[in-house]
Amino acid sequence: MHAVLQAVCEQTGISSPMNREEAEAVARLLKAVADPARLQLLSALSASPKGMACVCELTEAVGLSQPTVSHHLKVLTAVGLLRREQRGSWAWYGIAEEGVEALRQALNYPLPRAAFV
Amino acid sequence: MHAVLQAVCEQTGISSPMNREEAEAVARLLKAVADPARLQLLSALSASPKGMACVCELTEAVGLSQPTVSHHLKVLTAVGLLRREQRGSWAWYGIAEEGVEALRQALNYPLPRAAFV
Repeated sequence: MHAVLQAVCEQTGISSPMNREEAEAVARLLKAVADPARLQLLSALSASPKGMACVCELTEAVGLSQPTVSHHLKVLTAVGLLRREQRGSWAWYGIAEEGVEALRQALNYPLPRAAFV
Repeated sequence: MHAVLQAVCEQTGISSPMNREEAEAVARLLKAVADPARLQLLSALSASPKGMACVCELTEAVGLSQPTVSHHLKVLTAVGLLRREQRGSWAWYGIAEEGVEALRQALNYPLPRAAFV
């Protein structure tokens, strides 16, 4: 498991407030995804009927050049949100379940019903 | 409802890939929360037994000065992730349910089981 994801997962079992180290790991994950093009790429991959796509298909979905799309895919793969598979001369990408789940869990704040009543 | 949240909520019903405008709204929300101190503040508020806290309590939880904490709380309130209530001379804050829910929904990617099998 990626180091960033591991740190995120370790914190999610804790009900007490996040410590600084845990918060930094979650912030790194969120910063990687807090970009319009990367959100579009994640969305396009999620909506892909095959569950994965090659860079050539993704450039069309987001309307950006291939080097730009490749850079964004590299960043998302580096933090563990995407998985990469080499097929011949093309790299294929799919959403990494454990990464997206870690992201969701990190934002899974229990919502106190008593607030502002 | 905050404009940012509205744009996020409008996109969550759509199964097709996010358009640029929708992705920008989600990215704004994620950028606001992609900060260690803000994540610690959200976590501290979420863990607070009363569901809300005043600035004075939160400075202790994150170990930052009151003006810094106030700035972070202002940013989180501006994007609709926190609610603010004035009680005498102190401002109290709590997690805004619709904001956190919008954030979670925006990252709620269906995970295709067929990927990488």
